[in-house]
Amino acid sequence: MENSIGIIGGGQLGRMLAFAAMQMGFRITVIDPTPNSPAGQVAHKQIVADFTDEDAIMSVAQKCRYVTFEIELANAKVLDALAERGVSVQPSPQTLSILQDKWRQKTFLSNCRIAIPRFELAHDNAELLLQALQKFGGPIVVKARFGAYDGRGNYVVRDKNDISGALEKLHGKSLYVEEFVPFKHELAVIAAKSIQGEVSLYPVVQTVQQNNICHLVIAPAPIETNVLDQAKELAQNAMEQLEGAGVFGIEMFETEDGQVLVNEIAPRVHNSGHFTIEACRTSQFEQHIRAITGMPLGSTKMLVPAAVMVNILGNRTGGARITGVTEALASEGTSIHIYGKEETRPERKMGHITVTAGNLEDAMQRAQCAREKIGI
Amino acid sequence: MENSIGIIGGGQLGRMLAFAAMQMGFRITVIDPTPNSPAGQVAHKQIVADFTDEDAIMSVAQKCRYVTFEIELANAKVLDALAERGVSVQPSPQTLSILQDKWRQKTFLSNCRIAIPRFELAHDNAELLLQALQKFGGPIVVKARFGAYDGRGNYVVRDKNDISGALEKLHGKSLYVEEFVPFKHELAVIAAKSIQGEVSLYPVVQTVQQNNICHLVIAPAPIETNVLDQAKELAQNAMEQLEGAGVFGIEMFETEDGQVLVNEIAPRVHNSGHFTIEACRTSQFEQHIRAITGMPLGSTKMLVPAAVMVNILGNRTGGARITGVTEALASEGTSIHIYGKEETRPERKMGHITVTAGNLEDAMQRAQCAREKIGI
Repeated sequence: MENSIGIIGGGQLGRMLAFAAMQMGFRITVIDPTPNSPAGQVAHKQIVADFTDEDAIMSVAQKCRYVTFEIELANAKVLDALAERGVSVQPSPQTLSILQDKWRQKTFLSNCRIAIPRFELAHDNAELLLQALQKFGGPIVVKARFGAYDGRGNYVVRDKNDISGALEKLHGKSLYVEEFVPFKHELAVIAAKSIQGEVSLYPVVQTVQQNNICHLVIAPAPIETNVLDQAKELAQNAMEQLEGAGVFGIEMFETEDGQVLVNEIAPRVHNSGHFTIEACRTSQFEQHIRAITGMPLGSTKMLVPAAVMVNILGNRTGGARITGVTEALASEGTSIHIYGKEETRPERKMGHITVTAGNLEDAMQRAQCAREKIGI
Repeated sequence: MENSIGIIGGGQLGRMLAFAAMQMGFRITVIDPTPNSPAGQVAHKQIVADFTDEDAIMSVAQKCRYVTFEIELANAKVLDALAERGVSVQPSPQTLSILQDKWRQKTFLSNCRIAIPRFELAHDNAELLLQALQKFGGPIVVKARFGAYDGRGNYVVRDKNDISGALEKLHGKSLYVEEFVPFKHELAVIAAKSIQGEVSLYPVVQTVQQNNICHLVIAPAPIETNVLDQAKELAQNAMEQLEGAGVFGIEMFETEDGQVLVNEIAPRVHNSGHFTIEACRTSQFEQHIRAITGMPLGSTKMLVPAAVMVNILGNRTGGARITGVTEALASEGTSIHIYGKEETRPERKMGHITVTAGNLEDAMQRAQCAREKIGI
């Protein structure tokens, strides 16, 4: 009980949290609707139930001193009820409910005077989209307020002819719009906050998306000092104003004129932080466990000059069968993580590769070379 | 099947092997007589059976492409039968059978012209012990050939009056004797050999034993270059002559006149290599998994200037209950591993602490400080 943690969500993030927590001696229970989920394979126990299932969450809370989540889809209301009963739920359900609604998140950040793209509520309404298009004076991104990830739930409207397509694709969802930001780089900062309110940032990284899915992470980000400083300041400000403990993934744009804007904050460990397992003194996963259990945060220092993380995404549908690991690992400083998913699908996250090296060029070259050798 | 590994032995070494292997996507089955063993808690499956249980080992072999072990007590004969049927058993059963008999191990090393203390077969015989005492001209250590670890199975005979005590304590065991080596330092080298025969050594470490149990590991060993060179050469020679793949722990003495002798070789991951999890690019556990599955070995480089590992040993009998982790982790560069054992006992290995730092003095001081804060 005392050393037990319940994790809502049993995907790869929950799996890597479970590894970190169990090494520190915690007992782990996972809630996930898929039996034998990636985290369930590792945890002491998996409860097969939806992320929002009230009974399942309540039963975890009876067994676990700490409750956390790996997905924004977790049920903030139920978690709030748990927190009121004295279970330690982190990040706080209030913060989850702010961040899981992307429009509320943007409003919150705007109120905190954190630089973000211009945005506006839109509903499911062609007229409002047209007005936004005119107001922002350029392309807009129509976004679902809830449950969007990896580009699902986004639609770029370049002119009024795109509006009907957006409404069709996002039919039935609560929507808001943002100005489309042409960016020079996409950046991310993994940040942690302890229960005592201490904030700690990992080095700023550059992320490269393909089809709206994180493809590469480059650490540290090869960008100008003043851009780095802006990114760190934004992350620090945001973290100081968000309640509750845990690791957060903060995605940002560097605009073409060198300004940094926050794109999105996830109240959880994040794909852009996987490099920390090999490259930093404390992984984002251990850091999250430290944060939510009231422990001091660990050092976020990089132990190597450079690291590149590349995702292993599925490219077919069927039973997963990994090949090429031996060939991929022949390259120095290469690590492979496979998430134990039984079925592969196009663009499904099946694993990742991290390469550490003396400089970014070597890391990048070896990471791409290793990735080419892996089949799944 | 293809990506499955059977591990004989479910203690902390098996647990840390399971963590490393599962992160790489392997499925793990453990054999251990204690239900819910440290490794069984992590693995996909535990078979509750003795390490030498033929049926259990055979059933693992039917499910697993690779079989390995975390204890010398594994059944070399059954493993040999498996290997003959085409299961990949590493380290090779032949090497296990050489090393698990300490007298045969010494004979093997002596034949390989590897520097070791003088030794002799003794049986359960007072006359032979007296002869050895006279021949070696100083104290001798009477040792059990099989199953000795952490000082159990050893008895120091300083003069003929100690002989009856030795025979009483080691009654019924096959025995041999070694000259007692007064040492300046105890050293260890974790070494790996790939299936292709490539040998890779981790940095030489100093070990400090208390009551014959590993207490501290200091990495890298703060000793003279020519001593380091001797240690590396001995380890390299031994590894080149031992058949089969995997990680081996090689314990050594630095004698008072600066000569290095091999004390003992264990055909498995080793307590003196736990520091590699945080301090090296590839942990000894990942290295072992790479080695036994035919993958290339990873880099053994230290990523930090200094690391100290201190064991968390039990000091009472009863249910384990860990305290002080929050206080211990407040010190920079500190990691804690808890093995999930339900019962604590005096001197039982319950977990360990690793501290990395800019120099050995800081690492040592912080490690001892962290250890003092932990209760279990």
